[in-house]
Amino acid sequence: MSNCIVAQSGGPTSVINATVAGIVKANQLNPVYDRVFGGLNGIEGILAERFADLTDMSDEENHLLQQTPSSALGSCRYKLKRDNVEDFEKLLSLMDKHDIETLFYIGGNDSMDTVAALSEYAAKNGIKDKRFVGCPKTVDNDLMHIDHCPGFASAAKFIATTALQTWLDVNVYPTSRQEVFILETMGRDAGWLAASACLSGKVDILILPEDEFDEERFIERVRTCIQAKSKCYVVVSEGARYADGTYISAGESKNDLFGHAVLGGAGKTLEAMILASGAAGRCKVQDLASAQRSHASEQSLVDRVESFRLGMSAHMHSADKAFTGKMVALRRREGEAYDVEFFTVDADQVANYVKHFPAEWILPDYQGVTDEAIAYLRPLIEGSPALVYKDGLPAYVEPYYLR
Amino acid sequence: MSNCIVAQSGGPTSVINATVAGIVKANQLNPVYDRVFGGLNGIEGILAERFADLTDMSDEENHLLQQTPSSALGSCRYKLKRDNVEDFEKLLSLMDKHDIETLFYIGGNDSMDTVAALSEYAAKNGIKDKRFVGCPKTVDNDLMHIDHCPGFASAAKFIATTALQTWLDVNVYPTSRQEVFILETMGRDAGWLAASACLSGKVDILILPEDEFDEERFIERVRTCIQAKSKCYVVVSEGARYADGTYISAGESKNDLFGHAVLGGAGKTLEAMILASGAAGRCKVQDLASAQRSHASEQSLVDRVESFRLGMSAHMHSADKAFTGKMVALRRREGEAYDVEFFTVDADQVANYVKHFPAEWILPDYQGVTDEAIAYLRPLIEGSPALVYKDGLPAYVEPYYLR
Repeated sequence: MSNCIVAQSGGPTSVINATVAGIVKANQLNPVYDRVFGGLNGIEGILAERFADLTDMSDEENHLLQQTPSSALGSCRYKLKRDNVEDFEKLLSLMDKHDIETLFYIGGNDSMDTVAALSEYAAKNGIKDKRFVGCPKTVDNDLMHIDHCPGFASAAKFIATTALQTWLDVNVYPTSRQEVFILETMGRDAGWLAASACLSGKVDILILPEDEFDEERFIERVRTCIQAKSKCYVVVSEGARYADGTYISAGESKNDLFGHAVLGGAGKTLEAMILASGAAGRCKVQDLASAQRSHASEQSLVDRVESFRLGMSAHMHSADKAFTGKMVALRRREGEAYDVEFFTVDADQVANYVKHFPAEWILPDYQGVTDEAIAYLRPLIEGSPALVYKDGLPAYVEPYYLR
Repeated sequence: MSNCIVAQSGGPTSVINATVAGIVKANQLNPVYDRVFGGLNGIEGILAERFADLTDMSDEENHLLQQTPSSALGSCRYKLKRDNVEDFEKLLSLMDKHDIETLFYIGGNDSMDTVAALSEYAAKNGIKDKRFVGCPKTVDNDLMHIDHCPGFASAAKFIATTALQTWLDVNVYPTSRQEVFILETMGRDAGWLAASACLSGKVDILILPEDEFDEERFIERVRTCIQAKSKCYVVVSEGARYADGTYISAGESKNDLFGHAVLGGAGKTLEAMILASGAAGRCKVQDLASAQRSHASEQSLVDRVESFRLGMSAHMHSADKAFTGKMVALRRREGEAYDVEFFTVDADQVANYVKHFPAEWILPDYQGVTDEAIAYLRPLIEGSPALVYKDGLPAYVEPYYLR
């Protein structure tokens, strides 16, 4: 029997390890492979022969792995370029050396490009005993063909929970105190994460990268909101941009309506605009930064279970020796109750595309999202896995790359 | 039978409503008062006769109230000044008008000053049928006499959890990538919240307001850490300051070692110093801002239960018609297992003092805190209340000030 290897790439998520756990568990249930190796720090570590042996992972460790955020195998930003034949050859020879038949690569669209490139290279060179399989993950939810990406829903749940909680926080003072609260989320090119804050039902103004930012229209909305209730809750994506495509957080080169230099992130930029305009006397900015993608202590149960099952599905499909250059995916079933079915798609159909938040789901004048958007988002954040704690904090596995 | 009123003041916490719930429940178990009113937006709302009637709160609402963050009765920054006789007279006459015998005031040291001032005024003017009782709360944990403040432990748990999770996040990339992560916490004058991040066991450098910040020493520590393992995890209190007492976040007037203007919060200031010094090539800042005090979805069970019981204790003590000008408090019992006993203290002993993080618990060279500090902090974050969810998000009561 031969072996397989699994590796993770790109930015971490709250449930990225559940996919690893799914692959390991599937191989325990049906040992298609002799050993399940973990490649440490993605392709970069595999090329340096840095492996962990995950084959005989205990059920307890498998469980803790599923609740551990951020890539437990480590990650990398190293991209296998299609013209870098040297890397391809080295990887294939290492797979030979360690009798590895299948590489499972967990990542976003860059990683799916790697999966596609490797399987193309193998086909072109008549290599038939190697398989390259992609497993999706990204908090940004911007992969094509899949209904939603593992990792997104847990980040969305944390963002919506934080919106609800900080909305309560900013509203406690009397109406004599005017205040704007700005929540900044990730999402350089797609507004899914920012939009998910609307699940709280508390967002007055929402600025997405898919919408055109217009400062006058924005300030007008803030004014209206402050006049009506003295408080205003704003959510902005880090990727918010003007009609010409410039990020609103573009920095010193950009001056606001009132001639002030704009500094820092999107949230800080909006704050500067509001204070300069006098639309409100006070403003607070909360940038969720890294916390939103690593907050596994409040995972969505749906997200975690799907992430685990996608790992199992990848393993099970790979028993077919012709299964390569594919990504495992899920689509929503028709019907009232939320349910998904699993399928597979060519990795090159996913690589290098971005799925934007649909324009038809965006309400005019930054007023948030439609009911259709909420109906899409709501089922994804349902359920909360029972969390194992140790000494008052979530119990996590020690990262394999540090062992 | 007469009535009582409860109000909240100052910044919100994750468990501030559990104290209200405790007062309401105690009166249901033993109706010392005919009606339990909630004063909306603290003293400011009481003076405007904005009340809610909490007397017959259902058990379900009481339960949800305990898990709802931020003052459900609203808050205010209005301070009753000792020389403002007009406000005192108005408050007392309103208490007469509504047959209110006891005012429970939930807050920090400003609120305890209000409690002390009101009971002094009543005593001086021969008013014997009014009682003013303080209930402690503050995420900052800086009240004297009480072992720890309700609200602190839940914030500490969230901070330590976030430290653990973002530490995992920042470590995933190979050692070829040098990176510093800076977590900024609240704590203008006291380092309790920043210190609680050390419960994660992952903090390399800790900067507290009680310590003197020295830029060269700090940069040296960053360099050492980056050389050893290419990553460095820093936690800084917003109140971090130089030996001369200036906040390191003091702004444009302050230049760093390298002559650069320093802008923004403490975390951003440290980032600018690190990048200017070349001690590390990359730096990320996570400012927990409002989220840390309103993150009730991961309350400490110990914190919530104690906050509820302090409310009950306040109510029960107030059956004694001579009980006024006091704050209810708790102290830790001797012995290995964590346990507390309840007691009361004169509110004027608490008012306007600050309990600092003990100097003897701070390790030299920003290396964190001693085992004694951890032994003090650890029991406070133990346990997680079962959370009631609705549509995938924590279920909260509608704020009374918005009904």
